[in-house]
Amino acid sequence: MSKKYVPVDSQVYPRFSGIKTFMRLPHVQTTEDIDFAVIGVPFDTGASFAIGTRFGPEAVRSMSALIRPYNPGLEIDIFEYCSGVDYGDLAVNPGYIEDSYQLIESQLEPLLANDVVPILIGGDHSVSLPHLRAMANRYGKISLVHFDSHGDTWDSYFGKKYTHGTVFRRAAEEGIVDTSKSIQIGMRGSLYKPQDIKDAEDLGYKVITTHTLKGMTPTELGDAIKERVGNNPVFVSFDVDFLDPVFAPGTGTPEVGGFSTYDAQQFVRQLKGLNIVGFDCVEVLPDRDPAKVTSLAAANVCFEFISLVAWNKRAIPQNSSPSESVIQG
Amino acid sequence: MSKKYVPVDSQVYPRFSGIKTFMRLPHVQTTEDIDFAVIGVPFDTGASFAIGTRFGPEAVRSMSALIRPYNPGLEIDIFEYCSGVDYGDLAVNPGYIEDSYQLIESQLEPLLANDVVPILIGGDHSVSLPHLRAMANRYGKISLVHFDSHGDTWDSYFGKKYTHGTVFRRAAEEGIVDTSKSIQIGMRGSLYKPQDIKDAEDLGYKVITTHTLKGMTPTELGDAIKERVGNNPVFVSFDVDFLDPVFAPGTGTPEVGGFSTYDAQQFVRQLKGLNIVGFDCVEVLPDRDPAKVTSLAAANVCFEFISLVAWNKRAIPQNSSPSESVIQG
Amino acid sequence: MSKKYVPVDSQVYPRFSGIKTFMRLPHVQTTEDIDFAVIGVPFDTGASFAIGTRFGPEAVRSMSALIRPYNPGLEIDIFEYCSGVDYGDLAVNPGYIEDSYQLIESQLEPLLANDVVPILIGGDHSVSLPHLRAMANRYGKISLVHFDSHGDTWDSYFGKKYTHGTVFRRAAEEGIVDTSKSIQIGMRGSLYKPQDIKDAEDLGYKVITTHTLKGMTPTELGDAIKERVGNNPVFVSFDVDFLDPVFAPGTGTPEVGGFSTYDAQQFVRQLKGLNIVGFDCVEVLPDRDPAKVTSLAAANVCFEFISLVAWNKRAIPQNSSPSESVIQG
Amino acid sequence: MSKKYVPVDSQVYPRFSGIKTFMRLPHVQTTEDIDFAVIGVPFDTGASFAIGTRFGPEAVRSMSALIRPYNPGLEIDIFEYCSGVDYGDLAVNPGYIEDSYQLIESQLEPLLANDVVPILIGGDHSVSLPHLRAMANRYGKISLVHFDSHGDTWDSYFGKKYTHGTVFRRAAEEGIVDTSKSIQIGMRGSLYKPQDIKDAEDLGYKVITTHTLKGMTPTELGDAIKERVGNNPVFVSFDVDFLDPVFAPGTGTPEVGGFSTYDAQQFVRQLKGLNIVGFDCVEVLPDRDPAKVTSLAAANVCFEFISLVAWNKRAIPQNSSPSESVIQG
Amino acid sequence: MSKKYVPVDSQVYPRFSGIKTFMRLPHVQTTEDIDFAVIGVPFDTGASFAIGTRFGPEAVRSMSALIRPYNPGLEIDIFEYCSGVDYGDLAVNPGYIEDSYQLIESQLEPLLANDVVPILIGGDHSVSLPHLRAMANRYGKISLVHFDSHGDTWDSYFGKKYTHGTVFRRAAEEGIVDTSKSIQIGMRGSLYKPQDIKDAEDLGYKVITTHTLKGMTPTELGDAIKERVGNNPVFVSFDVDFLDPVFAPGTGTPEVGGFSTYDAQQFVRQLKGLNIVGFDCVEVLPDRDPAKVTSLAAANVCFEFISLVAWNKRAIPQNSSPSESVIQG
Amino acid sequence: MSKKYVPVDSQVYPRFSGIKTFMRLPHVQTTEDIDFAVIGVPFDTGASFAIGTRFGPEAVRSMSALIRPYNPGLEIDIFEYCSGVDYGDLAVNPGYIEDSYQLIESQLEPLLANDVVPILIGGDHSVSLPHLRAMANRYGKISLVHFDSHGDTWDSYFGKKYTHGTVFRRAAEEGIVDTSKSIQIGMRGSLYKPQDIKDAEDLGYKVITTHTLKGMTPTELGDAIKERVGNNPVFVSFDVDFLDPVFAPGTGTPEVGGFSTYDAQQFVRQLKGLNIVGFDCVEVLPDRDPAKVTSLAAANVCFEFISLVAWNKRAIPQNSSPSESVIQG
Repeated sequence: MSKKYVPVDSQVYPRFSGIKTFMRLPHVQTTEDIDFAVIGVPFDTGASFAIGTRFGPEAVRSMSALIRPYNPGLEIDIFEYCSGVDYGDLAVNPGYIEDSYQLIESQLEPLLANDVVPILIGGDHSVSLPHLRAMANRYGKISLVHFDSHGDTWDSYFGKKYTHGTVFRRAAEEGIVDTSKSIQIGMRGSLYKPQDIKDAEDLGYKVITTHTLKGMTPTELGDAIKERVGNNPVFVSFDVDFLDPVFAPGTGTPEVGGFSTYDAQQFVRQLKGLNIVGFDCVEVLPDRDPAKVTSLAAANVCFEFISLVAWNKRAIPQNSSPSESVIQG
Repeated sequence: MSKKYVPVDSQVYPRFSGIKTFMRLPHVQTTEDIDFAVIGVPFDTGASFAIGTRFGPEAVRSMSALIRPYNPGLEIDIFEYCSGVDYGDLAVNPGYIEDSYQLIESQLEPLLANDVVPILIGGDHSVSLPHLRAMANRYGKISLVHFDSHGDTWDSYFGKKYTHGTVFRRAAEEGIVDTSKSIQIGMRGSLYKPQDIKDAEDLGYKVITTHTLKGMTPTELGDAIKERVGNNPVFVSFDVDFLDPVFAPGTGTPEVGGFSTYDAQQFVRQLKGLNIVGFDCVEVLPDRDPAKVTSLAAANVCFEFISLVAWNKRAIPQNSSPSESVIQG
Repeated sequence: MSKKYVPVDSQVYPRFSGIKTFMRLPHVQTTEDIDFAVIGVPFDTGASFAIGTRFGPEAVRSMSALIRPYNPGLEIDIFEYCSGVDYGDLAVNPGYIEDSYQLIESQLEPLLANDVVPILIGGDHSVSLPHLRAMANRYGKISLVHFDSHGDTWDSYFGKKYTHGTVFRRAAEEGIVDTSKSIQIGMRGSLYKPQDIKDAEDLGYKVITTHTLKGMTPTELGDAIKERVGNNPVFVSFDVDFLDPVFAPGTGTPEVGGFSTYDAQQFVRQLKGLNIVGFDCVEVLPDRDPAKVTSLAAANVCFEFISLVAWNKRAIPQNSSPSESVIQG
Repeated sequence: MSKKYVPVDSQVYPRFSGIKTFMRLPHVQTTEDIDFAVIGVPFDTGASFAIGTRFGPEAVRSMSALIRPYNPGLEIDIFEYCSGVDYGDLAVNPGYIEDSYQLIESQLEPLLANDVVPILIGGDHSVSLPHLRAMANRYGKISLVHFDSHGDTWDSYFGKKYTHGTVFRRAAEEGIVDTSKSIQIGMRGSLYKPQDIKDAEDLGYKVITTHTLKGMTPTELGDAIKERVGNNPVFVSFDVDFLDPVFAPGTGTPEVGGFSTYDAQQFVRQLKGLNIVGFDCVEVLPDRDPAKVTSLAAANVCFEFISLVAWNKRAIPQNSSPSESVIQG
Repeated sequence: MSKKYVPVDSQVYPRFSGIKTFMRLPHVQTTEDIDFAVIGVPFDTGASFAIGTRFGPEAVRSMSALIRPYNPGLEIDIFEYCSGVDYGDLAVNPGYIEDSYQLIESQLEPLLANDVVPILIGGDHSVSLPHLRAMANRYGKISLVHFDSHGDTWDSYFGKKYTHGTVFRRAAEEGIVDTSKSIQIGMRGSLYKPQDIKDAEDLGYKVITTHTLKGMTPTELGDAIKERVGNNPVFVSFDVDFLDPVFAPGTGTPEVGGFSTYDAQQFVRQLKGLNIVGFDCVEVLPDRDPAKVTSLAAANVCFEFISLVAWNKRAIPQNSSPSESVIQG
Repeated sequence: MSKKYVPVDSQVYPRFSGIKTFMRLPHVQTTEDIDFAVIGVPFDTGASFAIGTRFGPEAVRSMSALIRPYNPGLEIDIFEYCSGVDYGDLAVNPGYIEDSYQLIESQLEPLLANDVVPILIGGDHSVSLPHLRAMANRYGKISLVHFDSHGDTWDSYFGKKYTHGTVFRRAAEEGIVDTSKSIQIGMRGSLYKPQDIKDAEDLGYKVITTHTLKGMTPTELGDAIKERVGNNPVFVSFDVDFLDPVFAPGTGTPEVGGFSTYDAQQFVRQLKGLNIVGFDCVEVLPDRDPAKVTSLAAANVCFEFISLVAWNKRAIPQNSSPSESVIQG
């Protein structure tokens, strides 16, 4: 690498100032010289209840200005090991889900071709399907680690196959996810029918419900995840409704009785060292987030994702040329 | 008629109480014994900017509890002359616009077959197309009286023909609206290209911009409308962004420099005596309406619509059987 | 007078600081050495729709910190001619309207006995009845100048005589208001029955509806008021729903199609020189006022009221002792 | 039973659509063919601090659209065993507490006479007194299981016996509650005097404070409740201020240091198998609930209540006629 | 020019998507090939009441996504004649006003040196002083056209010379503004002392109060401005509190009785053809703008400013090379 | 003492009524006959991200009306042992930090000279420096017990020494705090560099991070604090961002993964018996606190502070004259 992209200097430009990019990274649509790219996917046509996650990326970027580069939980100084940009938002076609799927998938290809780890910010959960398709094109059948209150493995809504509630059934059917090496975490809330959880298991997923997880330590969850995914390439999908509605009121289908952001931090940090090739964080709905806690939570989840990228980079030292130029956002 | 549907008695059940139907009318899915039906169309997949008008009908119903049955502006005591129900919401398929168009159109048919005047509450403006299709099926090529800050006569968005910005071009192309007897009122705001207004005129519509209307009296507008539509069956479509954003912040694409609710009352009352066969009021987006003024404004617009129905009923006296039973909401 | 009560010095204590009293006046429960007293009446049991005006006085005080002592509209420097305090709130018994009426009336007596002009901040409009009772006890049958979208002359709600919608019928029946010298201004909105306006006229009130007032100049309104009330002692009652809902969303029963704060300023200033012995400004409901514009409007209405007190004081010069001590809030 | 009332089909009518009834049940004012009825009691005259719970039933119904019919916590598919309706709101007389008590009590009678279990949604806590009176009329002296941060056993407010803070003293005094078989759970927050908790105990109630409960498991609480109430007919009263203010900001008198919705779910599910004859969930104040988490929490509490009804129905199988007709909301 | 900077294509990237720059222009910190630059100045240490305008630029950018490139009011297609960028925010030192003044002034120099017209978005009004200093450095003593409810010509606050209420006295004293060719428009609201308006006139400014302006047509205002400023280089400063608080609740010191956005559009368009060398739009405070109408209004004011730049460019045709490259935001 | 200041009687004046002072105490600027004084310090020029804590004291006072005088957690009836007032706000100079520091410090002197314990409500955290300076002047080098998510021991921001992020470094450098007897509790969140925590330790502070504290019981924390501070005079500083953002969204720099108000209550109560000579509670930012939970939490923290004052007074009985006069707020 000859360039290194890092956040703008907060001692010159106060954190409240400037064009709002994620963590104040440079907004450059490059696929070169970067380890990760934060990418908005402002698509919400798949929503079945409250809608408006098309404004999710903007809101998460806005609150991400509060995040500083050293992660004390993982004890890592991200930009010692990483270069990254805010790539902007992918083009989507609002109101047309299958067209948007093709647009999303094709725009991810050049990044994946260059081994860039995408940190995707939704949008509703329907976008995870094109994310997974692009991943599978590049890496083969991948492992899914899925934090959510819903399994999103229904067959259809109103006779339609593509919505935010059906993506992980589709992914299983399309063979792009290796469900035998995948895990769903946090399912809770009322269901349409008793067998909803079992349906996910029948597709091959391991499911850890909220009820079960409340009785586990973070380490126990970490062990369960590692045992499940092994060394397979992993895609991590985090739906903010994994969090309790007071921690994430700004979302389409909140379910009471969930987790805190502290819990989420402990759980996500357990993923350190996995072979993660992509992430998404979805379902932030700013119009229902009057105190902006949902956006703040999602920004921190993405910060943990970036920290995990840095963790892996530190483990496998790069030849960073002493002459590399640093580009501040 | 043997039954008469009227609002619940506010001296027994306070206005803040009860299941929220429009104006506290009975919620009955009947096509019999009614002159009008208030109907929700909670579809918002056509939205190009802010989204969430699927919750518009609920919000308008909620604020409509404030409305009493006598309209002093038109000097008419509505339920002296009318019977009406809250028909509930039409089934739609969120995320799938063409399927929803078919659903909407077909569900309107039995009402129109019985000469019921529908008062439709959106949803985004894309729903006016199936409304007009159903109208044309029943009444032939109809006149459009369209209050809006946008003409909604663009050709396509992102290559797609069906959105909330293209419906009145489609209606013209499909021949369901007689543009030579139709009028668009209130266009304003920045445009993509200079010819946007002229495009609407090229389709045959008469266009009165906000700038022109600010120099007219309500009577002058009334005369212009009457001259334009004559005795033709009329459909009235009212987009709440006709109002200024302070009167209607809760909408998808607000445009500054608009009208007050007082203006709107004066304008809509000019329609008295026209042969109006249907109405819609669209683009109420509750998640962006913190003081609920948009919902309140839309409820009042619909109240004027119902008053216009009553106006026509009074003009042509019915044989209301003295033995008719009154059903309170 | 030996003392003069004036607002705190904004060049020492910034306007955003300090215990929130009206216009930053001293909070002293005195009846001596003052021309006017601002008094909260946090009672809302009379509300028929939205409720919560018990928090009205707090909200109006909070926004009144923005008001400075010179009124350029009336060209008067208030504290050149006046002394006044924030008297705090009257004790009320929430949930018990007749008990509260007695409490309110009796607490006003010592102030009126000392010729202090009360500027009362509601509370819902039901409190105007004890206000008027106390006024009539002191001054005899008085004139009412009443700005409101509703006449509040209904006979009863749910069989009960005392609510915020019946007070001016009660006042007429009790003979405490001289309706032949009183005027109601601004009535509009849907009604329960056609004769609602006529009922008020039958009680003796002159009624100027919103529709009529929209065609009048402020001066014409001023003339109509003066002609009506003459030299009689006047009580001015201002319900914030006289304003359009965008200017006063925070109120219990908003009615679209109303007036701006600019209109209100012009109208209220027309009262200069009348023999006004008391004022109230009611129906501010902070929980429905997210942008605080209602509280700000009400604070400015009360500022005009105080300016009218000063206007009369200037006209009849007092012997203000050169040795009077100034007490800042 | 020849009819069965169940929620509307969410595969035809999306959950965001339709007239808002609880859980999308049919709105029918029947006392036949139903096991439970959800009933609004929009009365808030008893409130001592923030007010506006008259809009509580509307808000809870709105958020209840998110709830599906299978409860995985209790592993029960409600409408396999139950039929229920949204009965609408009871008539009340706002501003007049004793009149309203009579209205509420009398309207409950026909339901109780038919063994329908009422699920009542407040309204402030003052409504529990007429609820209990109606219960005692039907079932004799009953057991109270009361979740709340306040005991509501004060003697009077401002010299008045009926407010939301005195109901459980009144109930004890009237002998309609068997305090020796009753329990209050969750008391916390600052008090007027040291003996407030002891006063409740002197009335005969068992009191488990928040401090004590934080040290108990759900099962331990369940055992304590069961030991206390035995087989006596039970009324469950849940004040949302049992929850911490971040889980229930929308309430009249919030107290910090409370419980999560997860806690509440665990606790309420402990009631399974008790002989519960009625429920209420009170003190939802939508105007102070900007993120709607309070309404969502209350909707879920009521869902647990309905699940408990189903639990008992499953235990005592009914002869459900194979020919019963299903009526969807 | 060899490059032309224009907004991103809304037919490819929906308007709700992408990094939020003003009007979706490219974010490039260039001084070359551009006619105007939109620049944030997120400084609010000068605020005397409500504070938080440091987030003003972000909020204005966010709502500016709604603006399209053709201005029908001025009948101009902006990017036919102009090239412009979003330059980002200037570095400031929060809490330190004089340091920030130096930073702001120096960062404007390279733009002015290249004849770029800055469109500056505040920040509180204190930033206009460094704006004017930089202008005067480049263009000599300049004319001020100032829309505001306050003259901002107080001498000091709390003994300090630099606040948002003193800038135009300082500018006069420093001789950077030619007050004899300058005009203040819209002053209203309560004052600290009677002579506040006269003080501004004594400094040489012409003052048109709100009261006077309410009686003028836009053309009359335009004539008054033109007569005042002639051909002198002009700086236009627009404080959003010129608008009524319902049109601009999100501001630090709102004053009731103001103007609508329609009024503002008519007034600002009167500036066409003046020799305007810079603009600022200040005092947007997003935390007090729940419906975002203030941000939307300010975005539209800036759009009019850009249109005025284009107006002048059209008047003096440039040699735009046919081979210029177009760069979309 | 001859006078005793206590809250207003809530059985006469309902808690929602009256001028808003802390806990409804009398607003008297006395230094006599009081044990503690609640004092607002509405200064926010030191804020580095969101700003507006100048309105913090008003908001905390408003919600403190909910607090009653008996603290069941500490089992103490405050006004049995204490007398206290709401002293109002200190004069500050907004925008000028060093001037304000002098103003704050000098205004505290007369209170400290009379052994009054100040309970200071910020304002941003920058005000703790003048608080500590005044304390050290009176009591010598004091111990700091500091609850916060940030250590606030950075050296400078933008080259400036005085901001809300540098105060405890300054305090150490100035020698007014005995860091060897001081403790910082709750640090968490992303950092600018790895050594940020170590820097605080290098200054001599003991630091207990959130991560460590999550593994401790309240008693263990209490022991650690007591061991650290011994009998030294203690100043307690509580930044509301110690709480999780869902418990305190209304603050300038929220950090996810924090504590609940229940936790905070348990922790603060551990301070009982320490020789505490002053308290502050800072960083309440009402404009970002839509559900008012932050203000409510801060009011309760201050209530615990007052309870700790009473605890010490109870331990050292005073000769309270039987003839003392009681003054109610």
